[in-house]
Amino acid sequence: MPAQTQLGLMNRDELVAERTEQQTNYDALKARGLTLDLTRGKPSPEQLDLANELLSLPGDGNFTDASGTDCRNYGGLTGLPELREIFGELLNVPASNLYAAGNASLELMHDLVVYSLLHGNPDSPRPWSAEPVVRFLCPSPGYDRHFAICERMGIEMIPVGIGPDGPDVREIAQLAGSDPTIKGMWAVPNYSNPTGAVFSEDVVRALVDMPTAAPDFRLFWDNAYAVHPLIEDFAPSIDVLGLARDAGNPNRPFVFASTSKITFAGAGVSFLGSSTDNLDWYTKHLAIRSIGPDKLNQLRHVRFFGDADGVRAHMAKHRDILAPKFALVQQILDDRLGASKVASWTDPKGGYFVSLDVMDGTAARTIALAKDAGIALTAAGSAFPYKKDPDDRNIRLAPSFPSLDEVEASMDGVATCVLLAATEKLLAEQ
Amino acid sequence: MPAQTQLGLMNRDELVAERTEQQTNYDALKARGLTLDLTRGKPSPEQLDLANELLSLPGDGNFTDASGTDCRNYGGLTGLPELREIFGELLNVPASNLYAAGNASLELMHDLVVYSLLHGNPDSPRPWSAEPVVRFLCPSPGYDRHFAICERMGIEMIPVGIGPDGPDVREIAQLAGSDPTIKGMWAVPNYSNPTGAVFSEDVVRALVDMPTAAPDFRLFWDNAYAVHPLIEDFAPSIDVLGLARDAGNPNRPFVFASTSKITFAGAGVSFLGSSTDNLDWYTKHLAIRSIGPDKLNQLRHVRFFGDADGVRAHMAKHRDILAPKFALVQQILDDRLGASKVASWTDPKGGYFVSLDVMDGTAARTIALAKDAGIALTAAGSAFPYKKDPDDRNIRLAPSFPSLDEVEASMDGVATCVLLAATEKLLAEQ
Repeated sequence: MPAQTQLGLMNRDELVAERTEQQTNYDALKARGLTLDLTRGKPSPEQLDLANELLSLPGDGNFTDASGTDCRNYGGLTGLPELREIFGELLNVPASNLYAAGNASLELMHDLVVYSLLHGNPDSPRPWSAEPVVRFLCPSPGYDRHFAICERMGIEMIPVGIGPDGPDVREIAQLAGSDPTIKGMWAVPNYSNPTGAVFSEDVVRALVDMPTAAPDFRLFWDNAYAVHPLIEDFAPSIDVLGLARDAGNPNRPFVFASTSKITFAGAGVSFLGSSTDNLDWYTKHLAIRSIGPDKLNQLRHVRFFGDADGVRAHMAKHRDILAPKFALVQQILDDRLGASKVASWTDPKGGYFVSLDVMDGTAARTIALAKDAGIALTAAGSAFPYKKDPDDRNIRLAPSFPSLDEVEASMDGVATCVLLAATEKLLAEQ
Repeated sequence: MPAQTQLGLMNRDELVAERTEQQTNYDALKARGLTLDLTRGKPSPEQLDLANELLSLPGDGNFTDASGTDCRNYGGLTGLPELREIFGELLNVPASNLYAAGNASLELMHDLVVYSLLHGNPDSPRPWSAEPVVRFLCPSPGYDRHFAICERMGIEMIPVGIGPDGPDVREIAQLAGSDPTIKGMWAVPNYSNPTGAVFSEDVVRALVDMPTAAPDFRLFWDNAYAVHPLIEDFAPSIDVLGLARDAGNPNRPFVFASTSKITFAGAGVSFLGSSTDNLDWYTKHLAIRSIGPDKLNQLRHVRFFGDADGVRAHMAKHRDILAPKFALVQQILDDRLGASKVASWTDPKGGYFVSLDVMDGTAARTIALAKDAGIALTAAGSAFPYKKDPDDRNIRLAPSFPSLDEVEASMDGVATCVLLAATEKLLAEQ
């Protein structure tokens, strides 16, 4: 019979031996003097190289779009029609209901919250800032930058659960249906950050169908990973605007996307899709802030991609770089943590993250151990509202930026830290 | 002796003859079926061509700044150091106190007002939105987009006078010194929009020195035309931040600029200069909205200009295109309106506008006549808070975009409309 491998079933002597082994591993890890970073979902230089053609585009004499607009000059709040066509197809949003904007969809989300606070949206009885309290539903674990917008704006966050097919729609319908202070919800429908969840059509239908106590409730639908599978098949971008319209709630979704993880993370283009009412409202406020987005950068992207198939072909090259890194993460977690039963993790089919759940009460300790060994992990609790992981167990892993060798070294180190933190805790509890 | 030429001194018969002559001119003008536009300060295609090298920059393999940052990836909220150095020299702001941002300084102004409303600035006792009323001083005529921000945000605007050396600092000191609801003031220090005023050093000193009743009073210092003279000598960019610091009011100015009228109007870069306290506060809020500006476009501009002298040399080429258009405006106004004494206008040494004052009560009529003749002028009252020109006399002329021939045709047409509207009014009053 093999020695006991499940940490939770070990007796004290076995745990002491395990701790000694992991402490030895950890000391060796520290001795390597690593400087590795798994914190952010950044494309690697190799991925960025895929779009280097953009560095010389649109090219001399090339500054006019198909409609004859001089992209060098002022104007055009809605963005280039050709680019809206390409991404309309990919996002399953009619081009007429999709705007092309600046270099970050985060800015669009922020500004829509700000305009709602200052002015209210088209269905608001008054500006959100005139309400005694405004609340958002936050599927958790989720994206820290979404939650940071709420926290800064004084919007109370209510965490709700999320599984592989999307958030808990029964819980959400119950909350949003009864509490008129709930004005919105964050959602990452495809390859959710950080769990990799892909919202099923049933989930999407439930979210656009449900009655809400607030007439101006909005789904902040961040389709950041719409075309970012790690396998050959793309998860479909469900027609959330069409379903919402059919359900009689046409103004509910704000759809966001960007090319930050398609072309250049800092120099891409972003998109906002919504109902005509919402877009008219948005334009009214946008026009006070801006004379128009950088149309030349949009033209650059039109020339680079050509069409939607050009984007799909480009994403296959990203997949070829990313998939081996994600496979390596799975392999190391399986090898090092599988038998111990102290951790579980997602195996995403797309996106940028693996969500690792360690033994309750040991995530912060694991992250601290890793930090001391030169491995930077996203801060404990980052994927939860107010940065508070109620079980202190979630760690977001971002393997895109490091090289394969670095992914291997850092994940092996992380596994050691997980095991050391778990044995420490089990021993302390005995 | 010549016939009477001053409209105001004509008797009824002379006025009737004058009206007949101008009506004939106007009918001929309408018969030409013109489609001309003097509404916006847009660079002409010929001016945009000056920067066409940007269309292929930064060029393949060229994506790293001097500090080694990969400009393709995320990050860098403050913008590229090299670009901040170049424009720091031109704007007379230390590079360490100057951020490089996205494609429009209007967005920066808007966002600083929004952050002040939602959170207050570093010297605010509470968010501006928590005040019963917030007021801004608005030198008028001024820039319609400045005023539109105030109007949308519910900030009450108080017009104050402006002369060739800048706004009326005695009136401003009296108002800002006694009314704690006055939280800010708009200012375009070099070649002001639309009068072409250049603030003297005495005016700048007065504005940064004066006691203000509001501790969080801010100068929104829009140096949009810092390097845009129409003559050989540049008006200096006065060191407003240094003077404010020396006066004990270091946080008072927010300095703005952009390359919208240097390179490409829709695809340039913008700048924000201020005290370290203000910039730290701004960064805290910016970080919730953005991961960083388009650094590649900033790198593109660094490669194109090289240094501050590169910008100065580039602006000389703009001047060579613009100066003849402005000279033509002066010539036509002199020839057609000089003797009539029903109008006066500015003769700016830089910037993008000529401010034309017609006979009181005839600006709206003049603009309507021009519109019917196919000449689009900025809407009546545009240069005033709430679009209300108290004397109905100001018309902003923007001769940059049309060709020389078009400037000639449209200005001749405008002169006809001015004279026709004036004779109509004088006859009606007799």
